[in-house]
Amino acid sequence: MNSEKKQARPSRQGGSKYRGVRKYPSPTPKKNSSDKIKVCFLGGLEAVGEKNMAFIEYKNQIAIFDAGLMFPELNMPGVDYVIPNVEYLAKNKKKIVGLFITHGHYDHIGAIPHIMEKIGNPIIYAAPLTKAIIIKRQTDFPNAPKLRVIEIDPNKMDEIRFDKFKVHPFHINHNIPDSLGFAIETDLGKIFYVPDFKFDFTPIVDKPADLKRITKLAAKDPLLLMSDSTGSEDPGYAPSERKIFGELERLFEKAKGTRIIASTFASLLNRVQQIIWLSEKFGRKVVIDGYSMKTNVAIARENGYLDVKKNTIISPQEAIALPKSQLTIMCTGSQGEGNAVLMRMVNHEHRHFKVEKGDTIIFSSSAVPGNELSVSNLADNLNRQGANVYHYKMMDIHTSGHGSQEDIKLLMSLVRPKFFMPIHGKYSMLKKNTELAEQTGIKKENIVIANNGQIVEISKDSIFVTKEEVPANNIMVDGLGVGDVSEVVLRDRSQLAQDGTIIMIVMIDGKKGEIRGEPEIMAKGFVYAKGAEEKEFQKKIKDVVREVVSKSASKDHTTNWDYLKNNLRDKVGSYIFKISERRPIILPFVIEV
Amino acid sequence: MNSEKKQARPSRQGGSKYRGVRKYPSPTPKKNSSDKIKVCFLGGLEAVGEKNMAFIEYKNQIAIFDAGLMFPELNMPGVDYVIPNVEYLAKNKKKIVGLFITHGHYDHIGAIPHIMEKIGNPIIYAAPLTKAIIIKRQTDFPNAPKLRVIEIDPNKMDEIRFDKFKVHPFHINHNIPDSLGFAIETDLGKIFYVPDFKFDFTPIVDKPADLKRITKLAAKDPLLLMSDSTGSEDPGYAPSERKIFGELERLFEKAKGTRIIASTFASLLNRVQQIIWLSEKFGRKVVIDGYSMKTNVAIARENGYLDVKKNTIISPQEAIALPKSQLTIMCTGSQGEGNAVLMRMVNHEHRHFKVEKGDTIIFSSSAVPGNELSVSNLADNLNRQGANVYHYKMMDIHTSGHGSQEDIKLLMSLVRPKFFMPIHGKYSMLKKNTELAEQTGIKKENIVIANNGQIVEISKDSIFVTKEEVPANNIMVDGLGVGDVSEVVLRDRSQLAQDGTIIMIVMIDGKKGEIRGEPEIMAKGFVYAKGAEEKEFQKKIKDVVREVVSKSASKDHTTNWDYLKNNLRDKVGSYIFKISERRPIILPFVIEV
Repeated sequence: MNSEKKQARPSRQGGSKYRGVRKYPSPTPKKNSSDKIKVCFLGGLEAVGEKNMAFIEYKNQIAIFDAGLMFPELNMPGVDYVIPNVEYLAKNKKKIVGLFITHGHYDHIGAIPHIMEKIGNPIIYAAPLTKAIIIKRQTDFPNAPKLRVIEIDPNKMDEIRFDKFKVHPFHINHNIPDSLGFAIETDLGKIFYVPDFKFDFTPIVDKPADLKRITKLAAKDPLLLMSDSTGSEDPGYAPSERKIFGELERLFEKAKGTRIIASTFASLLNRVQQIIWLSEKFGRKVVIDGYSMKTNVAIARENGYLDVKKNTIISPQEAIALPKSQLTIMCTGSQGEGNAVLMRMVNHEHRHFKVEKGDTIIFSSSAVPGNELSVSNLADNLNRQGANVYHYKMMDIHTSGHGSQEDIKLLMSLVRPKFFMPIHGKYSMLKKNTELAEQTGIKKENIVIANNGQIVEISKDSIFVTKEEVPANNIMVDGLGVGDVSEVVLRDRSQLAQDGTIIMIVMIDGKKGEIRGEPEIMAKGFVYAKGAEEKEFQKKIKDVVREVVSKSASKDHTTNWDYLKNNLRDKVGSYIFKISERRPIILPFVIEV
Repeated sequence: MNSEKKQARPSRQGGSKYRGVRKYPSPTPKKNSSDKIKVCFLGGLEAVGEKNMAFIEYKNQIAIFDAGLMFPELNMPGVDYVIPNVEYLAKNKKKIVGLFITHGHYDHIGAIPHIMEKIGNPIIYAAPLTKAIIIKRQTDFPNAPKLRVIEIDPNKMDEIRFDKFKVHPFHINHNIPDSLGFAIETDLGKIFYVPDFKFDFTPIVDKPADLKRITKLAAKDPLLLMSDSTGSEDPGYAPSERKIFGELERLFEKAKGTRIIASTFASLLNRVQQIIWLSEKFGRKVVIDGYSMKTNVAIARENGYLDVKKNTIISPQEAIALPKSQLTIMCTGSQGEGNAVLMRMVNHEHRHFKVEKGDTIIFSSSAVPGNELSVSNLADNLNRQGANVYHYKMMDIHTSGHGSQEDIKLLMSLVRPKFFMPIHGKYSMLKKNTELAEQTGIKKENIVIANNGQIVEISKDSIFVTKEEVPANNIMVDGLGVGDVSEVVLRDRSQLAQDGTIIMIVMIDGKKGEIRGEPEIMAKGFVYAKGAEEKEFQKKIKDVVREVVSKSASKDHTTNWDYLKNNLRDKVGSYIFKISERRPIILPFVIEV
């Protein structure tokens, strides 16, 4: 393991003399790597919405940034979600000075309940709303440790000072309030970590990004910028939430007389605010439905991040008594998720509401990559039931929380870093982001693209991706188990899903080497035939079993049971493939009696 | 079943007196439904690329149109594909006069090997290339009946005449040569069946659609048009294949000095032709790779549908000896399919080729709905390996085989039907198509949208969707089994994929009502713990098993075994859920000894 080698290497402690001094310490960089800043992403360099987590190590101190989860991919059946591998951090937990969180989305906070104990439960630094969301989520995991979260308000707290570096938070925009970027100040220069961001000069329940502070921080020694690539392929600026507000207002106008069902991401609090304001303006009450939506709205209200009049939000029971034209249902399910509110309303499985002819359905969201088909099937079912569906492809009722090319170039121009490393996004997005960086004047040789787990070393004069790697594979969470679902288990699950399983129980008289009674055959998730054919099929398999036993079993308890079992698996498997072209998992149980 | 009722109903035979007479038989429509034309889709009204199959029944004669398959959806694990339910046709096979095929794509011909025997193996009518593809595919099913296929060339064969109606084929464009539409002439008027179509005035290896013939056929009694809705949401005309040719040529120019790997749908013969022509022009040899691509190219060459110079197509072995700049690899896998050629080249699992830095990769295809993520992941992997990827979002190197709004309106304007029924597409597309129909002057009350299985009745003066329905559910084909995979099996497979299974084998002394030996516990696709914990876990489950047996088993062979098994399933299941929050399928086997 590279990480162990790293640990064994003696690290230079003398760097502490530079504490508090902002000038570069020495014109000639030392050979010893403790003079270099190490940056490593445990997740966040290979996909959109990945298990984002990074750390910066300098002179034996480690600052961690974000600790997110990823929702499972198609080839991970049964997995609830995926978290980063924190093995390296666990081994180096004494070096950790803190965990800095940029914002309250699950791909930035979702791993916290699972990893904190392993890495020594360091102090978490987060803005007020982010803190509230983290603490609420922790209550869902009664066995997880109690967290120590320090609230950071970038307007009041200029810097968090450690021995070897300072961390400066600054406000940026995203589609959840209280989003931050961080500038990490070392004696080699400043590193800017700016994941999910956009610039919104007219945001909703949020302030515009703090350009002044970014400029001030960047005025001196801006060494490295690591920033979001998600929107790097989209030209122009990401539209402001205010623009969405205007379009939504037009829709509310048009929907007069009908019930409005509005769906968006549960975490998209700015959008929820807009729907609430518009409902109030148009004389509608609002039902909030869906567990995650209700939770987020409750947290936001408690912490003063939602502006709602008394009596606007009502219960489903109260809503039923109301004329439809006075009702907005704000719910989850915009991704076509099978058990979310919107799907249950469409399938008439919801306790209180069902979709009806004339309803106005607003998808104030985009389709997350991979969900395109389920979203479009859901919209089609809604249309088929006579509802009027509006989505982001039809009008501007959704805007990304990620800046487009001009936002990205604006950030680069504010920071003017020497080095650039694109983060967050598929490879094509990272690549495109490096082109934008070059356009803004960063030299090609000063730009690197790294993979998850690779250590990037930065000195005053150089940046490069080292050959050193720390473990950064996917850790799968399934039910209460963390990391116990392996590739082997996933392969078994896939095969079970493809063709099911056939279980055979054979009792053998060990003394005689003969089958006792009838072999028992049971199939699950596999079918070949029904009725009379089914009996015939069972009989054939039993014949194969008998043949194998007569050839492979010995008398006087000398049978090699593993050999017999393998033979049963092979011969029955081949027979079944021959007659059905399917490959169920064959599980033979041989019992000696 | 409605279909049985229908069969029992006496049908009027007198209609035969109108044979050959093109004038409407009577000003007042008869009450008896045999005077009406019945139209029914067994597939093709609810999705894109569905198992397309329709029939028209008039005066006890049935003509069938297309017999396609659908590739399985996400909730159908292990299913190879889905075919239409032909129960109604099987019961009425004596009425069937023929099966008319529009073109050689699998969503129009793929069910043929599975259904022909059931429906009495009627004569198939198909254009030459379509016929060749059907016959080639039939050889993959040695047990399927020998087909009788009559070749129809719309230039030579004006009509196919039956007792109660005539069928007129006409040439239209699509992305495979030899595509047809049909006009079914009855004494009530003509029904136009035009699935997948576009108008291409400058096609590749194909003639332009036969506007003259369509106009001539429509000149008299155009009663009903049923046509493709797939492109109804796309404005303008679908670009001509000739336009794609120009863009591809630019790419070949740009790719000079590098190897070209071009991927498209195996059935998109026009595109394969263009890549071959361009390769010849730019001094490249072509390797055709991927089973379906090789098969289709072979059929097309044998039947004169591909214009290839001698020596252009070479084997992979020959290709290896060639400089890269003189090579084009034309292959399958443009949808990111796991085992197709392109994926194997990316993963370095291909026998002859692997993707290398500098390769030019052309995706001359679009992403089929549901494949967006796998296509974009594939493109990302190619980029990461240093290849230069070009796809339809970047330049016009793919055009749909389905007409856009202006193509659709052109067809409507040529046919000028009294009635209109949109076919092929999601509901939103069918709906949009009805709007286009209204725009071209068809009256709103003369337009119907039906679901799969619904009988639509058409008289001279009316069209309506009846309450009568024939079975039109999905029949799943899995390996050699047709229709034996039920919803129950799919549910089992999904559950197996989610959390796996736990098998318990318990031997009980029936006389004493006690467990004999150790219960055997085995998990597949389920994990909770490893090593020492695993043993502890096994022990706990065995404790639960022992407790259940001690409470539920009786002495003197009086145990209720079903009750005992159910108890084992419940108690072990609850215990496992409690400690793991997972729900594997619990399979208890109780053996009385």
